[in-house]
Amino acid sequence: MGTLVLLRHGESVWNAKGLFTGWVDVDLSAAGEAEARRGGELLKEAGVTPDVLHTSLLKRAIRTANLALETADLHWLPVRRSWRLNERHYGALQGKDKAQTRDEYGEEQFMIWRRSYDTPPPPIADDDPYSQSGDARYANLPPELLPRTECLKDVLDRALPYWYDEIVPDLAAGRTVLVTAHGNSLRALVKHLDGIDDDAIAGLNIPTGIPLVYELDDAFEPKVPGGTYLDPKAAEAAIEAVANQGKK
Amino acid sequence: MGTLVLLRHGESVWNAKGLFTGWVDVDLSAAGEAEARRGGELLKEAGVTPDVLHTSLLKRAIRTANLALETADLHWLPVRRSWRLNERHYGALQGKDKAQTRDEYGEEQFMIWRRSYDTPPPPIADDDPYSQSGDARYANLPPELLPRTECLKDVLDRALPYWYDEIVPDLAAGRTVLVTAHGNSLRALVKHLDGIDDDAIAGLNIPTGIPLVYELDDAFEPKVPGGTYLDPKAAEAAIEAVANQGKK
Repeated sequence: MGTLVLLRHGESVWNAKGLFTGWVDVDLSAAGEAEARRGGELLKEAGVTPDVLHTSLLKRAIRTANLALETADLHWLPVRRSWRLNERHYGALQGKDKAQTRDEYGEEQFMIWRRSYDTPPPPIADDDPYSQSGDARYANLPPELLPRTECLKDVLDRALPYWYDEIVPDLAAGRTVLVTAHGNSLRALVKHLDGIDDDAIAGLNIPTGIPLVYELDDAFEPKVPGGTYLDPKAAEAAIEAVANQGKK
Repeated sequence: MGTLVLLRHGESVWNAKGLFTGWVDVDLSAAGEAEARRGGELLKEAGVTPDVLHTSLLKRAIRTANLALETADLHWLPVRRSWRLNERHYGALQGKDKAQTRDEYGEEQFMIWRRSYDTPPPPIADDDPYSQSGDARYANLPPELLPRTECLKDVLDRALPYWYDEIVPDLAAGRTVLVTAHGNSLRALVKHLDGIDDDAIAGLNIPTGIPLVYELDDAFEPKVPGGTYLDPKAAEAAIEAVANQGKK
Protein backbone atom coordinates (compact mmCIF):
# COMPACT_ATOMS: atom_id res chain seq x y z
CA MET A 1 0.00 0.00 0.00
CA GLY A 2 2.28 2.75 -1.17
CA THR A 3 5.75 3.92 -0.35
CA LEU A 4 6.62 6.66 2.11
CA VAL A 5 9.82 8.66 1.66
CA LEU A 6 10.88 10.91 4.55
CA LEU A 7 13.44 13.63 3.88
CA ARG A 8 14.78 15.87 6.63
CA HIS A 9 15.87 19.32 5.44
CA GLY A 10 19.56 20.10 5.08
CA GLU A 11 21.55 22.34 7.42
CA SER A 12 20.04 25.76 8.02
CA VAL A 13 21.94 28.95 8.75
CA TRP A 14 20.83 28.66 12.39
CA ASN A 15 21.85 25.00 12.70
CA ALA A 16 25.28 26.22 11.67
CA LYS A 17 25.14 29.01 14.29
CA GLY A 18 23.89 26.74 17.11
CA LEU A 19 20.61 28.62 17.73
CA PHE A 20 17.25 27.10 18.65
CA THR A 21 15.11 27.48 15.53
CA GLY A 22 11.72 25.80 15.83
CA TRP A 23 9.18 27.81 13.84
CA VAL A 24 11.56 30.66 12.99
CA ASP A 25 11.72 30.65 9.19
CA VAL A 26 15.46 30.56 8.55
CA ASP A 27 16.95 29.58 5.22
CA LEU A 28 19.23 26.71 4.26
CA SER A 29 22.99 27.23 4.47
CA ALA A 30 25.09 26.52 1.37
CA ALA A 31 25.91 23.13 2.94
CA GLY A 32 22.18 22.53 3.44
CA GLU A 33 21.48 23.29 -0.22
CA ALA A 34 24.13 20.74 -1.21
CA GLU A 35 22.53 18.16 1.13
CA ALA A 36 19.16 18.79 -0.52
CA ARG A 37 20.61 18.22 -4.00
CA ARG A 38 22.32 15.07 -2.76
CA GLY A 39 18.93 13.88 -1.49
CA GLY A 40 17.56 14.32 -5.02
CA GLU A 41 20.49 12.40 -6.49
CA LEU A 42 19.91 9.53 -4.07
CA LEU A 43 16.25 9.33 -5.13
CA LYS A 44 17.26 9.32 -8.79
CA GLU A 45 20.03 6.74 -8.35
CA ALA A 46 17.74 4.42 -6.38
CA GLY A 47 14.94 4.79 -8.93
CA VAL A 48 12.59 5.99 -6.17
CA THR A 49 10.16 8.33 -7.97
CA PRO A 50 7.71 10.18 -5.74
CA ASP A 51 4.24 10.87 -7.14
CA VAL A 52 3.33 13.60 -4.68
CA LEU A 53 5.09 15.92 -2.23
CA HIS A 54 4.06 17.09 1.24
CA THR A 55 6.01 19.85 3.01
CA SER A 56 5.82 21.98 6.10
CA LEU A 57 5.32 25.76 5.79
CA LEU A 58 8.96 26.52 6.58
CA LYS A 59 11.37 27.54 3.85
CA ARG A 60 14.19 25.21 4.89
CA ALA A 61 11.92 22.22 4.21
CA ILE A 62 10.31 23.76 1.11
CA ARG A 63 13.65 24.70 -0.43
CA THR A 64 15.06 21.25 0.39
CA ALA A 65 12.12 19.71 -1.48
CA ASN A 66 12.51 22.12 -4.41
CA LEU A 67 16.24 21.47 -4.74
CA ALA A 68 15.90 17.70 -4.36
CA LEU A 69 13.08 17.55 -6.92
CA GLU A 70 14.95 19.83 -9.34
CA THR A 71 17.90 17.44 -9.10
CA ALA A 72 15.64 14.44 -9.69
CA ASP A 73 13.88 16.31 -12.55
CA LEU A 74 10.55 16.10 -10.74
CA HIS A 75 9.73 19.81 -10.42
CA TRP A 76 6.20 19.16 -11.56
CA LEU A 77 5.05 16.94 -8.68
CA PRO A 78 1.78 17.95 -7.08
CA VAL A 79 2.55 19.50 -3.69
CA ARG A 80 0.62 20.12 -0.51
CA ARG A 81 1.86 22.04 2.51
CA SER A 82 0.79 22.17 6.13
CA TRP A 83 1.82 23.73 9.43
CA ARG A 84 1.17 20.25 10.87
CA LEU A 85 4.51 19.13 9.37
CA ASN A 86 6.42 22.11 10.86
CA GLU A 87 9.36 21.65 13.21
CA ARG A 88 8.63 21.46 16.94
CA HIS A 89 7.86 24.93 18.29
CA TYR A 90 10.71 25.69 20.67
CA GLY A 91 8.76 28.24 22.73
CA ALA A 92 10.73 30.96 24.50
CA LEU A 93 13.99 29.24 23.46
CA GLN A 94 13.49 30.21 19.80
CA GLY A 95 16.37 32.41 18.66
CA LYS A 96 18.48 31.58 21.74
CA ASP A 97 22.02 30.21 21.61
CA LYS A 98 22.09 26.52 22.54
CA ALA A 99 25.43 26.64 24.36
CA GLN A 100 24.44 29.78 26.32
CA THR A 101 21.11 28.16 27.24
CA ARG A 102 22.95 25.09 28.51
CA ASP A 103 25.28 27.26 30.60
CA GLU A 104 22.43 29.38 31.94
CA TYR A 105 19.97 26.62 32.89
CA GLY A 106 22.29 23.65 33.40
CA GLU A 107 22.70 20.37 31.58
CA GLU A 108 19.69 18.67 33.17
CA GLN A 109 17.12 21.35 32.30
CA PHE A 110 18.71 21.77 28.87
CA MET A 111 18.32 18.05 28.11
CA ILE A 112 14.73 18.02 29.38
CA TRP A 113 13.82 20.81 26.96
CA ARG A 114 15.67 19.15 24.11
CA ARG A 115 14.71 15.54 24.64
CA SER A 116 11.82 15.09 27.07
CA TYR A 117 8.83 13.53 25.35
CA ASP A 118 6.18 15.48 27.19
CA THR A 119 7.77 18.55 28.84
CA PRO A 120 7.73 21.63 26.57
CA PRO A 121 9.99 24.67 27.03
CA PRO A 122 8.36 27.85 28.44
CA PRO A 123 5.88 29.39 25.97
CA ILE A 124 6.97 32.25 23.71
CA ALA A 125 5.45 35.72 24.31
CA ASP A 126 3.41 37.17 21.45
CA ASP A 127 5.69 40.22 21.40
CA ASP A 128 8.86 38.12 21.27
CA PRO A 129 10.68 38.95 17.99
CA TYR A 130 10.71 35.21 17.24
CA SER A 131 6.97 34.68 17.85
CA GLN A 132 4.78 33.61 14.90
CA SER A 133 1.87 35.71 16.13
CA GLY A 134 0.64 37.76 13.16
CA ASP A 135 2.51 35.69 10.54
CA ALA A 136 0.31 35.64 7.41
CA ARG A 137 0.93 31.96 6.73
CA TYR A 138 -0.81 31.02 9.99
CA ALA A 139 -3.70 33.47 9.54
CA ASN A 140 -6.18 30.58 9.20
CA LEU A 141 -5.16 29.05 12.55
CA PRO A 142 -7.37 30.16 15.45
CA PRO A 143 -5.34 31.29 18.47
CA GLU A 144 -5.91 28.03 20.36
CA LEU A 145 -4.29 26.08 17.51
CA LEU A 146 -1.19 28.23 16.95
CA PRO A 147 1.51 26.69 19.18
CA ARG A 148 3.46 28.88 21.60
CA THR A 149 5.66 25.96 22.65
CA GLU A 150 5.68 22.23 22.02
CA CYS A 151 7.15 18.99 23.31
CA LEU A 152 7.50 16.02 20.96
CA LYS A 153 4.15 14.66 22.18
CA ASP A 154 2.49 17.90 21.07
CA VAL A 155 4.13 17.54 17.65
CA LEU A 156 2.82 14.00 17.27
CA ASP A 157 -0.67 15.09 18.34
CA ARG A 158 -0.85 17.84 15.70
CA ALA A 159 0.95 15.85 12.97
CA LEU A 160 -1.25 12.73 13.21
CA PRO A 161 -4.41 14.34 11.74
CA TYR A 162 -2.33 15.29 8.69
CA TRP A 163 -0.91 11.77 8.48
CA TYR A 164 -4.36 10.18 8.60
CA ASP A 165 -6.25 12.72 6.48
CA GLU A 166 -3.72 13.76 3.83
CA ILE A 167 -0.83 11.29 3.60
CA VAL A 168 -2.57 7.94 4.18
CA PRO A 169 -5.09 8.53 1.34
CA ASP A 170 -2.17 9.14 -1.05
CA LEU A 171 -0.54 5.91 0.15
CA ALA A 172 -3.84 4.05 -0.13
CA ALA A 173 -3.89 5.07 -3.81
CA GLY A 174 -0.60 3.20 -4.18
CA ARG A 175 1.44 6.36 -4.53
CA THR A 176 5.03 7.02 -3.55
CA VAL A 177 4.72 9.92 -1.14
CA LEU A 178 7.61 12.27 -0.33
CA VAL A 179 7.38 14.13 2.99
CA THR A 180 9.99 16.86 3.36
CA ALA A 181 10.02 18.19 6.90
CA HIS A 182 12.01 18.53 10.10
CA GLY A 183 13.94 16.55 12.71
CA ASN A 184 11.07 16.48 15.19
CA SER A 185 8.03 16.28 12.90
CA LEU A 186 9.70 13.32 11.15
CA ARG A 187 10.66 11.73 14.51
CA ALA A 188 7.01 12.01 15.50
CA LEU A 189 5.91 10.23 12.30
CA VAL A 190 8.57 7.55 12.77
CA LYS A 191 7.52 7.06 16.40
CA HIS A 192 4.00 6.39 15.18
CA LEU A 193 5.06 4.18 12.24
CA ASP A 194 7.55 2.04 14.16
CA GLY A 195 5.62 2.06 17.44
CA ILE A 196 8.56 3.47 19.40
CA ASP A 197 8.14 3.95 23.18
CA ASP A 198 7.89 7.42 24.69
CA ASP A 199 11.24 6.81 26.42
CA ALA A 200 13.07 5.26 23.49
CA ILE A 201 12.22 8.02 21.01
CA ALA A 202 14.73 10.38 22.67
CA GLY A 203 17.53 8.18 21.30
CA LEU A 204 16.30 8.30 17.70
CA ASN A 205 17.94 10.73 15.28
CA ILE A 206 17.09 11.16 11.61
CA PRO A 207 20.01 12.37 9.48
CA THR A 208 19.54 15.36 7.20
CA GLY A 209 19.30 15.03 3.42
CA ILE A 210 19.20 11.22 3.23
CA PRO A 211 15.83 9.84 2.05
CA LEU A 212 14.36 7.25 4.44
CA VAL A 213 12.07 4.84 2.56
CA TYR A 214 9.24 2.86 4.13
CA GLU A 215 7.31 0.27 2.17
CA LEU A 216 3.95 0.01 3.93
CA ASP A 217 1.58 -2.90 4.32
CA ASP A 218 -2.20 -2.65 4.04
CA ALA A 219 -2.46 -1.48 7.66
CA PHE A 220 -0.05 1.34 6.72
CA GLU A 221 2.61 -0.23 8.92
CA PRO A 222 6.25 -0.61 7.80
CA LYS A 223 7.12 -3.91 6.09
CA VAL A 224 10.68 -3.34 7.34
CA PRO A 225 10.79 -1.75 10.82
CA GLY A 226 12.82 1.45 10.77
CA GLY A 227 12.65 1.71 6.99
CA THR A 228 15.66 1.86 4.69
CA TYR A 229 17.99 4.82 4.17
CA LEU A 230 19.00 5.32 0.53
CA ASP A 231 22.60 5.86 1.66
CA PRO A 232 22.84 3.54 4.70
CA LYS A 233 26.54 4.16 5.37
CA ALA A 234 26.17 7.95 5.34
CA ALA A 235 23.05 7.61 7.53
CA GLU A 236 24.88 5.45 10.05
CA ALA A 237 27.82 7.86 10.22
CA ALA A 238 25.48 10.84 10.67
CA ILE A 239 23.51 9.10 13.43
CA GLU A 240 26.74 8.17 15.21
CA ALA A 241 28.04 11.73 14.97
CA VAL A 242 24.85 13.07 16.61
CA ALA A 243 25.03 10.41 19.34
CA ASN A 244 28.60 11.48 20.11
CA GLN A 245 27.74 15.20 20.26
CA GLY A 246 26.51 14.92 23.86
CA LYS A 247 29.64 13.07 25.04
CA LYS A 248 32.51 14.94 26.64
CA MET B 1 -13.80 39.73 -6.36
CA GLY B 2 -10.16 38.89 -5.98
CA THR B 3 -6.94 39.91 -7.68
CA LEU B 4 -5.27 37.99 -10.48
CA VAL B 5 -1.51 38.26 -10.97
CA LEU B 6 -0.07 36.82 -14.19
CA LEU B 7 3.66 36.16 -14.37
CA ARG B 8 5.34 34.87 -17.53
CA HIS B 9 8.48 32.79 -16.91
CA GLY B 10 11.87 34.34 -17.52
CA GLU B 11 14.17 33.48 -20.42
CA SER B 12 14.83 29.78 -20.90
CA VAL B 13 17.99 28.24 -22.32
CA TRP B 14 16.09 27.53 -25.55
CA ASN B 15 14.68 31.08 -25.80
CA ALA B 16 18.31 32.15 -25.73
CA LYS B 17 19.19 29.60 -28.46
CA GLY B 18 16.23 30.49 -30.72
CA LEU B 19 14.61 27.03 -30.65
CA PHE B 20 10.89 26.25 -30.64
CA THR B 21 10.18 24.95 -27.13
CA GLY B 22 6.48 24.31 -26.48
CA TRP B 23 6.15 21.38 -24.09
CA VAL B 24 9.86 20.51 -24.06
CA ASP B 25 10.89 20.91 -20.42
CA VAL B 26 13.90 23.20 -20.70
CA ASP B 27 15.30 25.12 -17.75
CA LEU B 28 15.65 28.85 -17.14
CA SER B 29 18.83 30.58 -18.30
CA ALA B 30 20.79 32.62 -15.74
CA ALA B 31 19.09 35.72 -17.21
CA GLY B 32 15.71 34.00 -16.73
CA GLU B 33 16.50 33.28 -13.09
CA ALA B 34 17.33 36.96 -12.57
CA GLU B 35 14.03 37.94 -14.25
CA ALA B 36 12.16 35.61 -11.89
CA ARG B 37 13.79 37.17 -8.82
CA ARG B 38 13.00 40.63 -10.19
CA GLY B 39 9.37 39.54 -10.51
CA GLY B 40 9.39 38.67 -6.81
CA GLU B 41 10.95 42.03 -5.94
CA LEU B 42 8.23 43.83 -7.91
CA LEU B 43 5.51 41.95 -5.99
CA LYS B 44 7.19 42.83 -2.71
CA GLU B 45 7.74 46.50 -3.59
CA ALA B 46 4.13 46.88 -4.75
CA GLY B 47 2.78 45.16 -1.64
CA VAL B 48 0.97 42.63 -3.84
CA THR B 49 0.87 39.48 -1.71
CA PRO B 50 -0.51 36.39 -3.42
CA ASP B 51 -2.48 33.94 -1.30
CA VAL B 52 -2.19 30.99 -3.67
CA LEU B 53 -0.07 29.94 -6.65
CA HIS B 54 -1.02 28.12 -9.84
CA THR B 55 1.67 26.88 -12.23
CA SER B 56 2.02 24.78 -15.36
CA LEU B 57 3.88 21.45 -15.22
CA LEU B 58 6.97 22.88 -16.92
CA LYS B 59 10.11 23.65 -14.94
CA ARG B 60 10.71 27.09 -16.44
CA ALA B 61 7.38 28.27 -14.99
CA ILE B 62 7.75 26.32 -11.74
CA ARG B 63 11.26 27.63 -11.11
CA THR B 64 10.16 31.18 -11.99
CA ALA B 65 7.43 30.87 -9.35
CA ASN B 66 9.83 29.36 -6.79
CA LEU B 67 12.45 32.08 -7.32
CA ALA B 68 9.90 34.91 -7.32
CA LEU B 69 8.24 33.60 -4.14
CA GLU B 70 11.59 33.02 -2.44
CA THR B 71 12.45 36.64 -3.19
CA ALA B 72 9.10 37.83 -1.84
CA ASP B 73 9.49 35.50 1.21
CA LEU B 74 6.34 33.62 0.27
CA HIS B 75 7.77 30.10 -0.16
CA TRP B 76 4.94 28.68 1.87
CA LEU B 77 2.04 29.60 -0.45
CA PRO B 78 -0.31 26.74 -1.31
CA VAL B 79 0.38 25.69 -4.89
CA ARG B 80 -1.54 23.80 -7.56
CA ARG B 81 -0.17 22.72 -10.93
CA SER B 82 -1.81 21.72 -14.20
CA TRP B 83 -0.88 20.77 -17.77
CA ARG B 84 -3.74 23.12 -18.72
CA LEU B 85 -1.44 26.07 -17.97
CA ASN B 86 1.41 24.66 -20.10
CA GLU B 87 2.87 26.54 -23.04
CA ARG B 88 1.29 25.97 -26.46
CA HIS B 89 2.39 22.61 -27.86
CA TYR B 90 4.47 23.44 -30.90
CA GLY B 91 3.94 20.07 -32.63
CA ALA B 92 6.64 18.88 -35.02
CA LEU B 93 8.43 22.23 -34.66
CA GLN B 94 9.49 21.45 -31.08
CA GLY B 95 13.27 21.41 -30.83
CA LYS B 96 13.70 23.05 -34.26
CA ASP B 97 15.71 26.21 -34.87
CA LYS B 98 13.42 29.20 -35.51
CA ALA B 99 15.66 30.88 -38.10
CA GLN B 100 16.22 27.61 -39.98
CA THR B 101 12.47 26.91 -39.96
CA ARG B 102 11.82 30.38 -41.38
CA ASP B 103 14.40 29.80 -44.14
CA GLU B 104 13.08 26.30 -44.92
CA TYR B 105 9.35 27.05 -45.02
CA GLY B 106 9.31 30.76 -45.86
CA GLU B 107 8.16 33.81 -43.94
CA GLU B 108 4.44 33.31 -44.61
CA GLN B 109 4.21 29.72 -43.37
CA PHE B 110 6.51 30.59 -40.46
CA MET B 111 4.24 33.44 -39.35
CA ILE B 112 1.11 31.29 -39.72
CA TRP B 113 2.59 28.70 -37.38
CA ARG B 114 3.75 31.34 -34.94
CA ARG B 115 0.79 33.66 -34.93
CA SER B 116 -2.31 32.16 -36.55
CA TYR B 117 -5.13 31.86 -34.04
CA ASP B 118 -6.52 28.59 -35.34
CA THR B 119 -3.90 26.89 -37.55
CA PRO B 120 -1.60 24.55 -35.58
CA PRO B 121 1.80 23.34 -36.82
CA PRO B 122 2.04 19.73 -38.02
CA PRO B 123 1.60 17.23 -35.13
CA ILE B 124 4.63 15.71 -33.46
CA ALA B 125 5.30 11.99 -33.93
CA ASP B 126 5.24 9.83 -30.79
CA ASP B 127 8.79 8.69 -31.52
CA ASP B 128 10.08 12.24 -31.99
CA PRO B 129 12.76 12.88 -29.32
CA TYR B 130 10.80 15.99 -28.31
CA SER B 131 7.44 14.22 -27.97
CA GLN B 132 5.82 14.05 -24.50
CA SER B 133 4.46 10.58 -25.16
CA GLY B 134 5.40 8.43 -22.16
CA ASP B 135 6.28 11.39 -19.92
CA ALA B 136 5.29 10.41 -16.36
CA ARG B 137 3.83 13.81 -15.58
CA TYR B 138 1.12 13.31 -18.21
CA ALA B 139 0.40 9.68 -17.26
CA ASN B 140 -3.12 10.62 -16.13
CA LEU B 141 -4.03 12.18 -19.49
CA PRO B 142 -5.79 9.77 -21.85
CA PRO B 143 -4.26 9.80 -25.37
CA GLU B 144 -7.05 11.96 -26.79
CA LEU B 145 -6.24 14.70 -24.28
CA LEU B 146 -2.44 14.80 -24.64
CA PRO B 147 -1.76 17.42 -27.33
CA ARG B 148 0.45 16.59 -30.30
CA THR B 149 0.21 20.14 -31.63
CA GLU B 150 -1.77 23.25 -30.72
CA CYS B 151 -2.81 26.61 -32.09
CA LEU B 152 -3.70 29.43 -29.67
CA LYS B 153 -7.38 28.51 -29.93
CA ASP B 154 -6.53 24.99 -28.71
CA VAL B 155 -4.63 26.50 -25.77
CA LEU B 156 -7.62 28.66 -24.82
CA ASP B 157 -9.98 25.66 -25.10
CA ARG B 158 -7.90 23.54 -22.72
CA ALA B 159 -6.98 26.41 -20.35
CA LEU B 160 -10.55 27.65 -19.82
CA PRO B 161 -11.73 24.64 -17.76
CA TYR B 162 -8.84 25.30 -15.38
CA TRP B 163 -9.72 28.99 -15.25
CA TYR B 164 -13.35 28.28 -14.41
CA ASP B 165 -12.85 25.28 -12.10
CA GLU B 166 -9.64 26.11 -10.23
CA ILE B 167 -8.76 29.82 -10.50
CA VAL B 168 -12.19 31.49 -10.39
CA PRO B 169 -13.14 29.76 -7.09
CA ASP B 170 -9.93 31.15 -5.51
CA LEU B 171 -10.83 34.62 -6.83
CA ALA B 172 -14.41 34.23 -5.62
CA ALA B 173 -12.99 33.65 -2.13
CA GLY B 174 -11.42 37.11 -2.40
CA ARG B 175 -7.89 35.76 -2.80
CA THR B 176 -4.94 37.23 -4.65
CA VAL B 177 -4.09 34.51 -7.14
CA LEU B 178 -0.67 34.22 -8.79
CA VAL B 179 -0.56 32.31 -12.09
CA THR B 180 2.96 31.57 -13.29
CA ALA B 181 2.90 30.24 -16.83
CA HIS B 182 3.89 30.85 -20.45
CA GLY B 183 3.61 33.35 -23.28
CA ASN B 184 0.73 31.57 -24.98
CA SER B 185 -1.19 30.16 -22.03
CA LEU B 186 -1.18 33.66 -20.50
CA ARG B 187 -2.15 35.26 -23.86
CA ALA B 188 -5.08 32.83 -23.95
CA LEU B 189 -6.19 33.90 -20.46
CA VAL B 190 -5.79 37.58 -21.34
CA LYS B 191 -7.75 37.08 -24.58
CA HIS B 192 -10.58 35.67 -22.48
CA LEU B 193 -10.34 38.30 -19.74
CA ASP B 194 -10.11 41.33 -22.01
CA GLY B 195 -12.39 39.95 -24.74
CA ILE B 196 -9.75 40.37 -27.44
CA ASP B 197 -10.70 39.43 -31.03
CA ASP B 198 -9.25 36.34 -32.70
CA ASP B 199 -7.40 38.63 -35.14
CA ALA B 200 -6.16 41.19 -32.61
CA ILE B 201 -4.64 38.64 -30.20
CA ALA B 202 -1.71 38.05 -32.62
CA GLY B 203 -0.49 41.55 -31.79
CA LEU B 204 -0.51 41.03 -28.02
CA ASN B 205 2.75 40.19 -26.26
CA ILE B 206 3.22 39.66 -22.55
CA PRO B 207 6.70 40.53 -21.26
CA THR B 208 8.61 38.00 -19.18
CA GLY B 209 9.15 38.43 -15.45
CA ILE B 210 6.89 41.48 -14.93
CA PRO B 211 3.76 40.74 -12.88
CA LEU B 212 0.54 41.81 -14.62
CA VAL B 213 -2.18 42.58 -12.08
CA TYR B 214 -5.91 42.43 -12.77
CA GLU B 215 -8.45 43.57 -10.22
CA LEU B 216 -11.64 41.69 -11.10
CA ASP B 217 -15.28 42.67 -10.67
CA ASP B 218 -18.00 40.31 -9.52
CA ALA B 219 -18.40 38.92 -13.05
CA PHE B 220 -14.65 38.09 -12.93
CA GLU B 221 -14.01 40.72 -15.57
CA PRO B 222 -11.13 43.24 -15.35
CA LYS B 223 -11.94 46.53 -13.64
CA VAL B 224 -9.14 48.04 -15.74
CA PRO B 225 -8.98 46.52 -19.25
CA GLY B 226 -5.52 45.13 -19.96
CA GLY B 227 -4.61 45.13 -16.27
CA THR B 228 -1.61 46.90 -14.77
CA TYR B 229 2.03 45.91 -15.05
CA LEU B 230 3.97 46.36 -11.81
CA ASP B 231 6.83 47.91 -13.81
CA PRO B 232 4.95 49.71 -16.63
CA LYS B 233 8.03 51.30 -18.21
CA ALA B 234 9.94 48.01 -18.39
CA ALA B 235 6.82 46.30 -19.74
CA GLU B 236 6.36 48.94 -22.44
CA ALA B 237 10.00 48.66 -23.50
CA ALA B 238 9.81 44.85 -23.62
CA ILE B 239 6.60 44.91 -25.67
CA GLU B 240 8.12 47.41 -28.10
CA ALA B 241 11.28 45.28 -28.46
CA VAL B 242 9.18 42.23 -29.38
CA ALA B 243 7.10 44.27 -31.87
CA ASN B 244 10.32 45.44 -33.55
CA GLN B 245 11.78 41.91 -33.79
CA GLY B 246 9.76 41.17 -36.96
CA LYS B 247 10.84 44.40 -38.70
CA LYS B 248 13.81 44.46 -41.04
